[in-house]
Amino acid sequence: MLGPRVWSSVRQGLSRALSSTVGGWASGEGRKVDISGIYPPVTTPFTATAEVDYGKLEENLHKLGTFPFRGFVVQGSNGEFPFLTSSERLEVVSRVRQALPRDKLLLAGSGCESTQATVEMTVSMAQVGADAAMVVTPCYYHGRMNSAALIHHYTKVADLSPIPVVLYSVPANTGLDLPVDAVVTLSQHPNIVGIKDSGGDVTRIGLIVHKTRRQDFQVLAGSAGFLLASYAVGAVGGVCALANVLGAQVCQLERLCLTGQWEDAQKLQHRLIEPNTAVTRRFGIPGLKKTMDWFGYYGGPCRAPLRELSAAQEEALRLDFTSNGWL
Amino acid sequence: MLGPRVWSSVRQGLSRALSSTVGGWASGEGRKVDISGIYPPVTTPFTATAEVDYGKLEENLHKLGTFPFRGFVVQGSNGEFPFLTSSERLEVVSRVRQALPRDKLLLAGSGCESTQATVEMTVSMAQVGADAAMVVTPCYYHGRMNSAALIHHYTKVADLSPIPVVLYSVPANTGLDLPVDAVVTLSQHPNIVGIKDSGGDVTRIGLIVHKTRRQDFQVLAGSAGFLLASYAVGAVGGVCALANVLGAQVCQLERLCLTGQWEDAQKLQHRLIEPNTAVTRRFGIPGLKKTMDWFGYYGGPCRAPLRELSAAQEEALRLDFTSNGWL
Amino acid sequence: MLGPRVWSSVRQGLSRALSSTVGGWASGEGRKVDISGIYPPVTTPFTATAEVDYGKLEENLHKLGTFPFRGFVVQGSNGEFPFLTSSERLEVVSRVRQALPRDKLLLAGSGCESTQATVEMTVSMAQVGADAAMVVTPCYYHGRMNSAALIHHYTKVADLSPIPVVLYSVPANTGLDLPVDAVVTLSQHPNIVGIKDSGGDVTRIGLIVHKTRRQDFQVLAGSAGFLLASYAVGAVGGVCALANVLGAQVCQLERLCLTGQWEDAQKLQHRLIEPNTAVTRRFGIPGLKKTMDWFGYYGGPCRAPLRELSAAQEEALRLDFTSNGWL
Amino acid sequence: MLGPRVWSSVRQGLSRALSSTVGGWASGEGRKVDISGIYPPVTTPFTATAEVDYGKLEENLHKLGTFPFRGFVVQGSNGEFPFLTSSERLEVVSRVRQALPRDKLLLAGSGCESTQATVEMTVSMAQVGADAAMVVTPCYYHGRMNSAALIHHYTKVADLSPIPVVLYSVPANTGLDLPVDAVVTLSQHPNIVGIKDSGGDVTRIGLIVHKTRRQDFQVLAGSAGFLLASYAVGAVGGVCALANVLGAQVCQLERLCLTGQWEDAQKLQHRLIEPNTAVTRRFGIPGLKKTMDWFGYYGGPCRAPLRELSAAQEEALRLDFTSNGWL
Repeated sequence: MLGPRVWSSVRQGLSRALSSTVGGWASGEGRKVDISGIYPPVTTPFTATAEVDYGKLEENLHKLGTFPFRGFVVQGSNGEFPFLTSSERLEVVSRVRQALPRDKLLLAGSGCESTQATVEMTVSMAQVGADAAMVVTPCYYHGRMNSAALIHHYTKVADLSPIPVVLYSVPANTGLDLPVDAVVTLSQHPNIVGIKDSGGDVTRIGLIVHKTRRQDFQVLAGSAGFLLASYAVGAVGGVCALANVLGAQVCQLERLCLTGQWEDAQKLQHRLIEPNTAVTRRFGIPGLKKTMDWFGYYGGPCRAPLRELSAAQEEALRLDFTSNGWL
Repeated sequence: MLGPRVWSSVRQGLSRALSSTVGGWASGEGRKVDISGIYPPVTTPFTATAEVDYGKLEENLHKLGTFPFRGFVVQGSNGEFPFLTSSERLEVVSRVRQALPRDKLLLAGSGCESTQATVEMTVSMAQVGADAAMVVTPCYYHGRMNSAALIHHYTKVADLSPIPVVLYSVPANTGLDLPVDAVVTLSQHPNIVGIKDSGGDVTRIGLIVHKTRRQDFQVLAGSAGFLLASYAVGAVGGVCALANVLGAQVCQLERLCLTGQWEDAQKLQHRLIEPNTAVTRRFGIPGLKKTMDWFGYYGGPCRAPLRELSAAQEEALRLDFTSNGWL
Repeated sequence: MLGPRVWSSVRQGLSRALSSTVGGWASGEGRKVDISGIYPPVTTPFTATAEVDYGKLEENLHKLGTFPFRGFVVQGSNGEFPFLTSSERLEVVSRVRQALPRDKLLLAGSGCESTQATVEMTVSMAQVGADAAMVVTPCYYHGRMNSAALIHHYTKVADLSPIPVVLYSVPANTGLDLPVDAVVTLSQHPNIVGIKDSGGDVTRIGLIVHKTRRQDFQVLAGSAGFLLASYAVGAVGGVCALANVLGAQVCQLERLCLTGQWEDAQKLQHRLIEPNTAVTRRFGIPGLKKTMDWFGYYGGPCRAPLRELSAAQEEALRLDFTSNGWL
Repeated sequence: MLGPRVWSSVRQGLSRALSSTVGGWASGEGRKVDISGIYPPVTTPFTATAEVDYGKLEENLHKLGTFPFRGFVVQGSNGEFPFLTSSERLEVVSRVRQALPRDKLLLAGSGCESTQATVEMTVSMAQVGADAAMVVTPCYYHGRMNSAALIHHYTKVADLSPIPVVLYSVPANTGLDLPVDAVVTLSQHPNIVGIKDSGGDVTRIGLIVHKTRRQDFQVLAGSAGFLLASYAVGAVGGVCALANVLGAQVCQLERLCLTGQWEDAQKLQHRLIEPNTAVTRRFGIPGLKKTMDWFGYYGGPCRAPLRELSAAQEEALRLDFTSNGWL
């Protein structure tokens, strides 16, 4: 586990950098990493006493490793990252790095509320093995998070990050859509490689692809519910909670889209919408973890204040899978 | 123009029907009309003194008649129907009917707030030549418009309508998304043939297609911004404000989608998003009408309380077309 | 009933006026009517076959006439005005006028979507005996209803109205809060006397009172739930659905506020909140009409698409009254 | 500063407690602390390099100490608590405790996303001298934060807290209104003494006072904009950002309300609405801090991603004070 000394050193090293002018320091040479493909946003397994269960985490990764994923997102919203301490966040990423084959990308969620904390967490994520940082929009003061504030925030983070940065917009949790004009501006930063957009507005996704076409900027759909449509308008992949339980199917949908088999893709996409909604908007992480238990993974409990599903909810969740032929 | 006698007769004829049991009377034999294709929702031209300008309406239709549209929507939201008297609504439809070749479908907006008024208007629309009625959700009491209320409303309308009914969900105006479960129930009615969905949520559109797959139910995208994506998930056409000014391009996008030329479709779709947003969400009907003026149609003024664009807005509107190569 | 000739004459008379400059014609001498006090927004009784039941309307008014109301609002949101024909709207107001003692104010809802229709309806309402017109914000195109549009709309209506105009903001139905800056501008019009504000934001109400303090502008709370608080910040009365069933109590609350008996006022206010929410936001007009049946008035059915309460809803509605000692 | 050892000890001590049944352990004897009165939610001063400036914090407190406040809220939303490390949060509270006279209450914001972190922070806040903990609703997963989840969360925190707990609902930041039924249930907990409600819905505040009248439960208004109205419906005080700059005036408003001088209270309240909105909803913490600079306190910069006001915003901010006679 990272001790206080590491943290202290990270902080001291960054204090000067943070007070420098935005844009004054860039990490990369502009050769952007290819992030196209499918990623499960892995859940964080907990024991009955709410400790992180690293053994179960590795077991899950072992099972998920059989699918042709491009990589894994660690500490996206489904990773319950707001419930983890800083040390736990880093330890989880460290363990995932060790468990993953080198060719799988590890995208680590490193967003915090303040710019400084986000920079520190991003640097630390790089130190423990993340290939890229996925940075959620700050949200507590979302009323003040206009384009100027967000451009400044992400520019600072990208300037100081040793690894490429992926923007992350998830209005269902943050109450905030990263504005398109901010995305377009940020797409020109040499260390920002793409965006995960979970809002589900495919017109917006198409527009982002269009307006960043002269940059090497990649858009990932943030959910399996609109994955086909996102490919159709130019996205290059997806971060899909559903891939934690229907990994083969989500990868098959990707392949059908990439090979232009749109009719089959459509049929498959249709059967994934209800299960996807069930493990995201409808029943949240408790629904996803319950489904993982059904599909041979370790789901287990969430940390409080997230609650287990009721029996009725569990039944409705199951129906969303059985009625589409998945259980 | 329809006189008071016609109205009175319509009302008397319907009063018994309206108090009968829902579902007790159905107009059709279940053979549903094919509504697939592209439709411009035509605007209502007004003179400088805010009278309906039927001559300009016919001129616009004459020019629009050169494109391979499936038909025309009259008195969708872009037709300023809430600003027209009942007589004007019918007269406009009557004039459009006379101006159109017989093979073009005329979908007439006939929604009103009360079920009774909607039924009366629907019957009258049929009398003046509409091929199908497009019925917007009632909205003033949207807090009470749950699935049960909406199912009852549309069933009554469909029971009593001599022409097929198309559901119409446009949350940006009504504050109300017609719930998917209500759509699924209503799709089983023999006289309900489809839905125009303007919400832009392509996950929802895919789900509606999926859950109505055993009915002969057709989904039209309500805007050109997500037309490609809607085709990709199973929609059969679109009602696109943008088709009033870029008719050839919207029809070309349709053809590219239908013939599986997805790469070209994507490029074209991308260039249509900003112009589409400009004439819908961003600048509304005043923006659409201004653009019509630029493209050789008669746009003209809106009825109050809609206001003309400011010079700055006009410039921004123009930029959305020029920056995409359309002006 | 008003025949087509009257309408036609109204329209012709107004066509010139409507095309004149805003502000060019004002009806009054600036002596504004005093609208302070409590008003029930009367419901529209319907027969089992959904005809307006004018007899029941008069019976209700007769019973309500025993309370010290300042007057009555006819065709506010609780009057189901969007479900009435123009003729019915006028006939209802005409009947209420005849049934009311001359010293009771009759505020008639005359709002329509278009400015022209609103002017016509306002003029007609005056002709059938309304003392003032209560004009709801147009709402179908609420995305375009900015301050400029609304100021223009209301100015035109007030210019042409033979009776004083009361602004009416009810965001729960319209999705639109009449902006404070628009209210302040409009408060300077000699024929605009006040606003009914149903939004429940008492900070906003206080601000409106404050910023119109140099005009003779009166604010009415739009609901009994925040009546005391509204008096505390400077409102002069209320239009309260609850006054249709607890008329004595709402008038008592007014008196306690006006005489500075704030402790007793608070106790009474507390006991009115749940019943008020029940007949407004929670169960809507069906809840209000059901409660009217319990309290010796005629409630009866609503017009479709509004639906009757379920048995469970009815029970919950009753509990909101019994638990506060009113049933 | 608290070292890692303290944290570790806190965590070990709580691990057993956290896995025990909710409600099994209660800290108090039911004698609830009196929290009535006015509180400024103090800002956290930062140096030019974004370090916490403890000296300026003490200077501000010294100046604020001259007003008859009941106490101070530390790390409410205006304290930028999401931007502070855990150590900084505790250190700030510790410094405030030392700077305050013993008779001033110190309410410390201790809310975190997870229940466990909230409990730990609450216990630590008690250790560094907080008199009560003000616990904001968790919000990142607000879609899952129903009454059951929130009741469980707050019960656990209150069970384990050595100091009384004040609920804190601030929907503008969290997207979440703590449901009234949850508040009523929680009001029965012996260690929960009240709520700070920042939503501004005075109907809701009245209802909470009414439904908790049999408990010794106290409601604080969360803003000066609706302070008078809140007193009128039964609140006992307020946590008012504006009190950081207009402390005398907010205390005077309290006194006018408590002594029943409602007319003077109304006049004063009116003049505070715009300044209050300016330093909260309109310009946020950057606006509050800028105003503090004007009024002789140290405002200083915010931590990123919060941005300084533009010159135009600063001018608008100033106008909200000058036009009401405060500058």
